[in-house]
Amino acid sequence: MPARKSEHERVSQRELLASAHLLADTSGPAILKYFRKKLVVEDKGSGGRFDPVTVADKAAERAIRRQLRRLHPDHAILGEEEGFTAGSSPITWDIDPIDGTRAFMTGMPLWGTLIGVTFEGRAIVGMMDQPYTAERIWSADKAAYWRNAGGKTQRLRSTPCRSLADARFTTTSPDLFVEASEKEVFARVRHAARMTRFGGDCYAYCLLAAGHVDVIIEAGLKPYDIVALVPIIEGAGGVVTSWTGSRPEDGGRILATGDPRLHEKLLKITSQA
Amino acid sequence: MPARKSEHERVSQRELLASAHLLADTSGPAILKYFRKKLVVEDKGSGGRFDPVTVADKAAERAIRRQLRRLHPDHAILGEEEGFTAGSSPITWDIDPIDGTRAFMTGMPLWGTLIGVTFEGRAIVGMMDQPYTAERIWSADKAAYWRNAGGKTQRLRSTPCRSLADARFTTTSPDLFVEASEKEVFARVRHAARMTRFGGDCYAYCLLAAGHVDVIIEAGLKPYDIVALVPIIEGAGGVVTSWTGSRPEDGGRILATGDPRLHEKLLKITSQA
Repeated sequence: MPARKSEHERVSQRELLASAHLLADTSGPAILKYFRKKLVVEDKGSGGRFDPVTVADKAAERAIRRQLRRLHPDHAILGEEEGFTAGSSPITWDIDPIDGTRAFMTGMPLWGTLIGVTFEGRAIVGMMDQPYTAERIWSADKAAYWRNAGGKTQRLRSTPCRSLADARFTTTSPDLFVEASEKEVFARVRHAARMTRFGGDCYAYCLLAAGHVDVIIEAGLKPYDIVALVPIIEGAGGVVTSWTGSRPEDGGRILATGDPRLHEKLLKITSQA
Repeated sequence: MPARKSEHERVSQRELLASAHLLADTSGPAILKYFRKKLVVEDKGSGGRFDPVTVADKAAERAIRRQLRRLHPDHAILGEEEGFTAGSSPITWDIDPIDGTRAFMTGMPLWGTLIGVTFEGRAIVGMMDQPYTAERIWSADKAAYWRNAGGKTQRLRSTPCRSLADARFTTTSPDLFVEASEKEVFARVRHAARMTRFGGDCYAYCLLAAGHVDVIIEAGLKPYDIVALVPIIEGAGGVVTSWTGSRPEDGGRILATGDPRLHEKLLKITSQA
């Protein structure tokens, strides 16, 4: 179906963003039904690792996929719960209905729904929706925006911060760093940073875009954990790459800074892992 | 002034709670003016430890103290910023305008204003106010309540959880555990718990009261970090003590659980530190 494929290739970023808003409008209420309620929790982890899956996660991804199939039937979908569904278009939607499952399970409103779009593997549109605090953050036209509960939307700009000694460093958990070389990078950054704050997941990357966090270092991320955040960070003036400086869309080890000069310095540390 | 003193001794818990609401109504807007804004940060730590103080912290404590002097001129006040002010009454107000300064500085809405009251050293009234999410949690008549942004107030009940293997464990940061024996207790609880989530400060204790967190272990707390939370946890059916099982009002090493049976089990671990 070459005609159809080329038609979908021409879907503009603005249309993709409009679709992302519709998807978040759907997923928010679907997830909130379960937030701070008694949850049925399965353990899908292997070995000793605990990897919680909630009913809410699955219900929200189902709802998002159903709507996506209607809006963009040819696009591929990569979702946390149901994996990869191929499409005939070079566009893929990377979906994580509840990024920050541990936050969700303990009632902390720092989880978010991640909706990202890649074109030929490169992130071009991103959205993070936090329905409990009624906050939504997204990228558009190489910029990033934050809408508050009151409906006020502000353009985001990351904060200049040239030195790690001045930097507010966050990472979701020290447990993200598994290999010895990862632990060493984490220890070096933690001890050199002005302050360290744990817990944050996707919400922390949006705070970096908004200028309240200066550096985030994490490891073991999946593509759907980061794709949606890439255009938001880049649109706000920040930089996000792998620990070796390559594009971040595949996940794994991630380095994000609000100031490009700090990113350059930190790469010298992270690239040694 | 014995007549005046006895008059203030008879201040009812209901009156104290009404005053706490007034104080939180004052402190919320005073603090929000500075949340997610550029902050002037001083380092009041000695040695290598970073201990941020914000303009917001100081402004809010000043406002709270001014109002308290009007409402209850004879009561003592212990505040994070200005220390202890003696009173002629056996009632002390324990105030932490921004508990969770690191959360505040990184833009995460998990800090809170703590307003607690002790009578002869025992916590009798407590309130945690989170003005950004418009959530307020308090104790009254041996019960605990949570008011949401929408104005809906719900009575809190902690969740039964008899075993650490089923428990959701949170602690603000692994850095709280400084001494070797503290680190060992932390490691034992962390490895035995079903899951661990970092970051939370006062907000996590309220989530424990609400039944979303099962156990919290922390160390190095000040009285004003915990006094306000004690009647909330107890009012919801939980237990909060020191690591040896004594009353928690003095701060230090704190163990809180939603289920009294789990508390009994954990004391066997924590009391070894």
